[in-house]
Amino acid sequence: VRIAVIGLGLIGGSVALAFRQLLGARVSGWDADPSAVARAQERAALDFAAPDLQTAIADAEAVVLAAPLGALPRLIAAALKAAPADCVVTDVGSAKRRLEQFHADERFIGGHPLAGAETAGIEHARADLFEGATWYLTPVANTEGVLYERLYRLLVGIGAQPVAIEAGEHDRMLALISHLPHVLANVLVQQTAAGGEGGHGRLPATGPSFRDVTRVAGSNSAIWTDIYLSNADALTEALDATIARLTAARELIRAGDASAIRDWNELAARDRRRLVERQLADGPLHELRVAVPNRPGVVAELALALGEADVNITDMALYPAPDGSRGVVALWIVGDGERDRAEALIMGAGYTVGRP
Amino acid sequence: VRIAVIGLGLIGGSVALAFRQLLGARVSGWDADPSAVARAQERAALDFAAPDLQTAIADAEAVVLAAPLGALPRLIAAALKAAPADCVVTDVGSAKRRLEQFHADERFIGGHPLAGAETAGIEHARADLFEGATWYLTPVANTEGVLYERLYRLLVGIGAQPVAIEAGEHDRMLALISHLPHVLANVLVQQTAAGGEGGHGRLPATGPSFRDVTRVAGSNSAIWTDIYLSNADALTEALDATIARLTAARELIRAGDASAIRDWNELAARDRRRLVERQLADGPLHELRVAVPNRPGVVAELALALGEADVNITDMALYPAPDGSRGVVALWIVGDGERDRAEALIMGAGYTVGRP
Repeated sequence: VRIAVIGLGLIGGSVALAFRQLLGARVSGWDADPSAVARAQERAALDFAAPDLQTAIADAEAVVLAAPLGALPRLIAAALKAAPADCVVTDVGSAKRRLEQFHADERFIGGHPLAGAETAGIEHARADLFEGATWYLTPVANTEGVLYERLYRLLVGIGAQPVAIEAGEHDRMLALISHLPHVLANVLVQQTAAGGEGGHGRLPATGPSFRDVTRVAGSNSAIWTDIYLSNADALTEALDATIARLTAARELIRAGDASAIRDWNELAARDRRRLVERQLADGPLHELRVAVPNRPGVVAELALALGEADVNITDMALYPAPDGSRGVVALWIVGDGERDRAEALIMGAGYTVGRP
Repeated sequence: VRIAVIGLGLIGGSVALAFRQLLGARVSGWDADPSAVARAQERAALDFAAPDLQTAIADAEAVVLAAPLGALPRLIAAALKAAPADCVVTDVGSAKRRLEQFHADERFIGGHPLAGAETAGIEHARADLFEGATWYLTPVANTEGVLYERLYRLLVGIGAQPVAIEAGEHDRMLALISHLPHVLANVLVQQTAAGGEGGHGRLPATGPSFRDVTRVAGSNSAIWTDIYLSNADALTEALDATIARLTAARELIRAGDASAIRDWNELAARDRRRLVERQLADGPLHELRVAVPNRPGVVAELALALGEADVNITDMALYPAPDGSRGVVALWIVGDGERDRAEALIMGAGYTVGRP
């Protein structure tokens, strides 16, 4: 398989290494910074260092755009212009709604791997960076099903767990699990440092819990300025909710009702367990076969229905009927309960599903 | 030396083990829960398991009260009543202002080690728990200097770094570095879990940064309900400041000025480095000898003057003159620059200081 990777930093470099080493792909690459290209070659991340974006993409079956958020709109437009008709184009940006316009082209599928964004540079790239990582994809009704399947299987091939999600929901979720924690960490270190200055010029001794909570404070400014700008809508909405919750917590603590404070703390303990110990399903692997009409949007619809219900699709395959009018989507699901839920969801969406 | 430890959980148990193993002290102990006493004996933490608080304390030179915050006022009162005249009484509670009343007794010195509060129970006690840990002490003008020195040296003897601090400032500082991070973590997990529910019932995949930021969410409810209640004033004040800062951050992000966002993020990066990489002074050990009149409050005044300026006193000793009218306080300070700062501070407070 022929892959083009545009942008050769930590993520792009790791994508290139993973496709070469784990899938034996032929990887061509380009970066606006010639020194990044040189370092990618030193890391043996590329089969071909292209002189420009168009050449890198010219015969690709899949294009991964791994540039900073601010540069993505221009690069996606250029890539869709240069890419062959039968080529899927995806990106790895951590805010997806501002790229939704590009889904007008059926070859584009927004993407976002949840993998190390803190240590920039191809020096830190690794082929196993995506092993076990959730990799969000934002297919829409217009998405070409064959291209979605291709991208899906490529990502599974490098160890990732692709999950379909609507772009707006992705951005709201990322605001909660990533962007908001960064803002809170920034505010907390600034307040603590200023508090020390306000007192006697003493900065407080900080323990391990403070270090954990603020580990992400002041992360790479170039990357994070882009993120804050690109996901401003969802993030300001999340901040409004946080401010309301903190105001309520302040009242709870001021009022001094021990049993109410205890309940509030216990809720946090339960919620954290649910969030952090959230497990992938465990159990036997099941195949489901869904008969589908051959029309745009079917694959995206199935993927989103299962993704929204938190059912993991371990693998998928498309089998079009010879006459092209209909086909079968095979889905692999881990766990008896998950298989049953998936069946119910697929039937609920109006499709026939069988167990081979 | 004879030490009494009241309350034999993680902290009390570690205090007992440390005094026995590191200082060869004779440690008597008592806990309201007989099973805690039994487990302390199994861990060989006690020379003498007393039948009640009074017996444990009867001939002690130092008493450490390591009970939950809510129980401390009652226990401190009882300990001061039972303790010999020449006995220092301290506690390990993480909120100090509500105990200030007890400083009316010159034998009482509030204390608070910054050491593991998450894993309760003497099962996790260790003699080296306080190695390198900041241990706050809250001497006041009324504090008996000889008892302060005794407590100070005992704590140095088990590896801790005692730092004198005013009770109100301690509480404001702890609100910032510990209590506020816990509230933020609680709010963040609750908001994230509720956000998942509000959407499609999907709980988001969370990455390592979310796990770090929320590690302290829903910590031990018994301990933390006590802490929130005991430090409610400083904590609500800190929450007000956080809410104001989050409101400003929200406006900054909404306004979309990339350079202002970058500056704000860079400030957080600098502040975090200052807070987390705050180092203890390094260099040669210097002794300073301060001539002092023999009146109450001198030792506390010196300790607070240096503590407030963030100068670490590595060790200290009192040398009263034979006629008791005056004396010398010897202080050991690490580093040339720190020694110079300490000298200036001590002279600024009106004392004569010499280098032996």
